[in-house]
Amino acid sequence: MSMIYQQAVTQPKKMLNNLKNFLNEAAEVAESKSFERDNFLQIRLAPDQFNLLRQIQTTCDTAKLTAARLAGVEAPSHPDTETTWDELLTRIQSVIDYLDTLEEAQFEDAETRWIELPFMKGKKVAGLDYMIEFGTPNLYFHITSAYAILRSNGVKLGKIPFIGSMNMVDA
Amino acid sequence: MSMIYQQAVTQPKKMLNNLKNFLNEAAEVAESKSFERDNFLQIRLAPDQFNLLRQIQTTCDTAKLTAARLAGVEAPSHPDTETTWDELLTRIQSVIDYLDTLEEAQFEDAETRWIELPFMKGKKVAGLDYMIEFGTPNLYFHITSAYAILRSNGVKLGKIPFIGSMNMVDA
Repeated sequence: MSMIYQQAVTQPKKMLNNLKNFLNEAAEVAESKSFERDNFLQIRLAPDQFNLLRQIQTTCDTAKLTAARLAGVEAPSHPDTETTWDELLTRIQSVIDYLDTLEEAQFEDAETRWIELPFMKGKKVAGLDYMIEFGTPNLYFHITSAYAILRSNGVKLGKIPFIGSMNMVDA
Repeated sequence: MSMIYQQAVTQPKKMLNNLKNFLNEAAEVAESKSFERDNFLQIRLAPDQFNLLRQIQTTCDTAKLTAARLAGVEAPSHPDTETTWDELLTRIQSVIDYLDTLEEAQFEDAETRWIELPFMKGKKVAGLDYMIEFGTPNLYFHITSAYAILRSNGVKLGKIPFIGSMNMVDA
């Protein structure tokens, strides 16, 4: 597997599945304490940071847009209309399903593909730099922020569910 | 520049410099509000998470060990004895300086180098998988956690200081 494909498609898919697991843990906490799981969605770590709902939407967009731009294709639109837990789970799954449609061959020229970003008018960045300097840090920033919101609000999470499965073999 | 060298050496160096910038912002907040900047070091987002001091030590270790293991060399030892702000800044700088000593040629076989981890006895992982599935997520996990502790405690930070400089050119 090419490094770009692994980092822009395979690994984000795993992280999105890990994120679903965080949410499942949180839903169990809500149920065990008899509160609405959707209450988690409005929590934020600081008044000037995104709440959990927006952290998850942004995680989804970062995974989707990084892969699509590197493959040189138009990503499907997600208009950020989610307000409930189930809608967010559907959003996450739709990005996992989208990543599943991308073939490794579409990333053959990704490393040197020039990418223009809507918030950096008049500039361009090579695909490899875009992934390493922006797409990847941004993905982990938002998924870690979502994790931190949940963990600091009583959801039992640790490094193992964050990292998820690893491709290890017997030594 | 090879992708592994960029992601395991160049980019972590930038992130460690970004982390120093977060700390400089925090020190200014402490000074403007007349409290000891070291007070930040004991803050944690949840009682079962690392405090800021340990998040920074772990960020340093992750950057150092990921690069050293991929290069197949022994990393210098840092015994986690820091207790003050200045000692932490020195620790961060020592890892930046260490990364500066690693040459791109040392990473030629990194992608397929078998790596064994002290906490995964009897298992091994190929270098590329180790970096993508463990080293990189772990680095961003701890630096984002440090960022979140500071930002949720009154330090003005945003996405721009987190991402830092990007290698963009005129379109």
